[in-house]
Amino acid sequence: MTSPAPEDVFGEWHEKLERVRYSETDKMGIVYYANYLVWFEIGRTEFCRARGFSYRDFEENDESYLVVAETYCRYKAPAYYDDEILIRTHITELRRRSLRFGYEIVRASDGQIIAEGETGHVVTDASGRVRSFPEGFAQRLLAPPVIKSQSSGAIVPSETGPA
Amino acid sequence: MTSPAPEDVFGEWHEKLERVRYSETDKMGIVYYANYLVWFEIGRTEFCRARGFSYRDFEENDESYLVVAETYCRYKAPAYYDDEILIRTHITELRRRSLRFGYEIVRASDGQIIAEGETGHVVTDASGRVRSFPEGFAQRLLAPPVIKSQSSGAIVPSETGPA
Amino acid sequence: MTSPAPEDVFGEWHEKLERVRYSETDKMGIVYYANYLVWFEIGRTEFCRARGFSYRDFEENDESYLVVAETYCRYKAPAYYDDEILIRTHITELRRRSLRFGYEIVRASDGQIIAEGETGHVVTDASGRVRSFPEGFAQRLLAPPVIKSQSSGAIVPSETGPA
Amino acid sequence: MTSPAPEDVFGEWHEKLERVRYSETDKMGIVYYANYLVWFEIGRTEFCRARGFSYRDFEENDESYLVVAETYCRYKAPAYYDDEILIRTHITELRRRSLRFGYEIVRASDGQIIAEGETGHVVTDASGRVRSFPEGFAQRLLAPPVIKSQSSGAIVPSETGPA
Repeated sequence: MTSPAPEDVFGEWHEKLERVRYSETDKMGIVYYANYLVWFEIGRTEFCRARGFSYRDFEENDESYLVVAETYCRYKAPAYYDDEILIRTHITELRRRSLRFGYEIVRASDGQIIAEGETGHVVTDASGRVRSFPEGFAQRLLAPPVIKSQSSGAIVPSETGPA
Repeated sequence: MTSPAPEDVFGEWHEKLERVRYSETDKMGIVYYANYLVWFEIGRTEFCRARGFSYRDFEENDESYLVVAETYCRYKAPAYYDDEILIRTHITELRRRSLRFGYEIVRASDGQIIAEGETGHVVTDASGRVRSFPEGFAQRLLAPPVIKSQSSGAIVPSETGPA
Repeated sequence: MTSPAPEDVFGEWHEKLERVRYSETDKMGIVYYANYLVWFEIGRTEFCRARGFSYRDFEENDESYLVVAETYCRYKAPAYYDDEILIRTHITELRRRSLRFGYEIVRASDGQIIAEGETGHVVTDASGRVRSFPEGFAQRLLAPPVIKSQSSGAIVPSETGPA
Repeated sequence: MTSPAPEDVFGEWHEKLERVRYSETDKMGIVYYANYLVWFEIGRTEFCRARGFSYRDFEENDESYLVVAETYCRYKAPAYYDDEILIRTHITELRRRSLRFGYEIVRASDGQIIAEGETGHVVTDASGRVRSFPEGFAQRLLAPPVIKSQSSGAIVPSETGPA
C-alpha cells in the first residue's frame, strides 16, 4: 500500500543519442538485428556513468562482471544508416546477485519506438563464479543521475515501460 | 489425439559446425553476447539450404524477406575463441505470414548446451509490406533435409527443445 | 611554385569523438583491429556532414557510391573499452573518379595518436560501374566545414599528416 | 645461389573455405570492407592449425600474443551473401620478433581473386611488451602442413603471391 510501485523505484530512464553506422546495416538496407544488443550495451554503460558509476572500473577495480544471462528484443520498425537513435535504458529488477535492464530504441526524428528489449545479468567474479554485488553497488545504481540524459529534441512518448 | 505433437512436425533439427572467431570474443575473454544472434542466422540459412531452399534466392527471386520481429536468447555457459560449436536449428511455428525458429548452441567437445534461443519472423516484400509466404514455401521448409547435418562427433544430448 | 602544397588544399581535418564500445574489444582486452576501419567510416561520414554533404543522400539521391578500393592502417598503441577516441579525417587526394581519405585515431585523454590509416575509393553507380563524381561534388567536399569539429579537450598534437 | 627464393621458403599457402554471412553484408548489398580483416584472422588461425600449432595455446600457454601492427587490403571485386570464399594465407616475412602474413580472398565459384592483403605482427608478452618468439616457433610455422588445405573445387589461379 505504502511501498512505491516498481516503476517509481526503477523507472528513471537514461537516454543516449547514437547515429547508425554504415557497418551496422545489412543487405536488406536496414540495421542488422544483432546490433540492437550492441546498442543495449551502450545504454547500460551510459546508464551507469550517468550515476557516477564506471562499468570499466567495476570490472577492473571490483573484479566484478555483469555476465549476460538472457536477452530479449522486439523489433517494431527498421532503423536506417545515418538515423539518429535514442537508446533509453532503465533498471527493471535489482536483486542481491542479479539485475535486469529494460530498453527502448527510439527514432530521434519522430520519437517512434522502433525496438524494445530486456537483458538479464548475474554478477560474477573474474573466474566466472556468481557472487553478490559489491558493497554500495545498489545505492549507486539507484541514485539519481548526476549526468543528464542527452536530449534528442524529438517528441519522446511518455514512458509506459516495456510490456 | 491423432494429430502429431508439434515436435513431430517441426522437430527435426539441422546441425552446423562453426569455429569461434577471435573477432567474436570480447575483453571478458568469451564470446560477446550479440554474436549468438549471428550464429542463429547461420543456423537459419543452413536449415533452409539443407532442405534444398536457398534463402539468398528467396530474397532475390521471390522478392521475399524474413524480417526479424523478435529474438530471445538464454546464455548458460560461455563460449571461447577457437571452440567448435554446433548450431542446432529447427522450426517451432509456421503460419501463413510468419514463422519461428528455435536454436541450441552446443559446445562440440562435450555436447553441453551453452545457449538456447528463438527468433520470430514475418515475411515481407521488398518494400517491407507483410505478405504471405510464396507458393510452396511451407512444403519446402517442412520437407526432410536433402543435405545431412554436420556431425560434431560430440555426445549431443537427446533433444527436448527449448523450454 | 605558386600552387599550394597538398596539405594546404586538402589538409583540414574533421574531428569526431567516439567512445570505445565493449563489443569492439576482443579477448586480448583491446579493440579488435578490424574495428579501426569502422571508425574510419564514421570519420568519412562526419567529414562529409561537416561540409553540408550527406553521404546517405549521395547514395540515395545521386545513386553514387564510394566503393572502397584500398585500406591501410598502422596500429601504434592499443585502445581500451570506454576510452574516448578522436577520429581525425581529411582528404589526401581527389580526382575525377576517385578520392583518398587519411585518418588519425587519437586517444582523447592524452592526445596520443594510436593509429593512422588511409582508404582509397572509386565512385560507382548503383550497378557498380565506375563513373565520375556528380556535378559539384568536389566543391562541396573541399569547401570549409559548416559544422565544427568536436573538441576533445585533449592536447592534440600539431598535425603533420600521415607519412 | 644456393639459398632458396623467399617464395620457396614461405610460399606455401593455406586455404580455408568460408561462407559469407548475412551479418557481413552492408546496405550496398556486398560484404562490408572491415570484414575482410576478420577473414584474414581466420586465415592466420587456420594456417597455424594446419602446422600443428594452436594460436589459442600460443596465447594461453606461451603467454605470447601476435599483436597487429599493420594491415593492408586491396579490394578487387565484391563478395556477396552466401558466396563461398577461399581464404588463402601464407607467411611473407619471419623475423626474431615479428612476422607478416599475406592473403588472397578467392571467390570459390570461379576462382577469381576478389581481395588481397597483408598483415604485420609483433610478438608481445601478456603485458604488451615486445619479446622474441618462443623457442621452436619458427620451425613449427615453417614446417610443412600436417592438415591439408580445404579444396574449393574451383580453378584457383596459379599463385604468384601478392605484389
